[in-house]
Amino acid sequence: MSFDPTSLIYNDAGLIPAIAQDEHTGEVLMMAWMNAESVVRTLETHRVTYWSRSRQSFWVKGESSGHVQELVDFRVDCDRDCLLVVVRQTGPACHTNRRSCFYTSVQSGEEVELMAPMV
Amino acid sequence: MSFDPTSLIYNDAGLIPAIAQDEHTGEVLMMAWMNAESVVRTLETHRVTYWSRSRQSFWVKGESSGHVQELVDFRVDCDRDCLLVVVRQTGPACHTNRRSCFYTSVQSGEEVELMAPMV
Repeated sequence: MSFDPTSLIYNDAGLIPAIAQDEHTGEVLMMAWMNAESVVRTLETHRVTYWSRSRQSFWVKGESSGHVQELVDFRVDCDRDCLLVVVRQTGPACHTNRRSCFYTSVQSGEEVELMAPMV
Repeated sequence: MSFDPTSLIYNDAGLIPAIAQDEHTGEVLMMAWMNAESVVRTLETHRVTYWSRSRQSFWVKGESSGHVQELVDFRVDCDRDCLLVVVRQTGPACHTNRRSCFYTSVQSGEEVELMAPMV
């Protein structure tokens, strides 16, 4: 079946969550949002392109930092309201310079930091 | 630092996205939503508990199907607006009986099904 980006389910703001996963380690790197045009651009360029809600503009991941995400696999979930992009990540995915944005764990009621910024 | 569920960033509906990842395979299984009370219940019971937007009620994953998710690790992202729950998954995570909800891949403009329902 041919893929139609408008067949995805977007929220009231026209956005769909996209989870980025590292192709090699399987690590979940981050979650951000895409609109239909981000989806098209990501598939066409193989450069993962989100929609920045704060800046209200396209966000080609790594465009300024160099920490780009090359698209390896583009997946759609059963409800068509969430995406999973498997990526080849250059450098850290997180703006704090950590490999993953999910670097804090809650253990016995305490927040524990699991990874340090990359140098 | 002590973890306070009210310190998370919820959307206008009081919800935060939660990504479930298989502890053994690293596979991303599903994404669903939690409210503050879901977060509390998940941490207290170690049974992953979402908020069902369609039913507007707590959704103890697997309560009816038996396909429960036992909490192994509970992570918070850098912006505190997304969760990652690492889980011990019993049976398929997807309501279609597939291991993961992300069973469709977009390849050269076509949708390709990557996994069959579990039997």
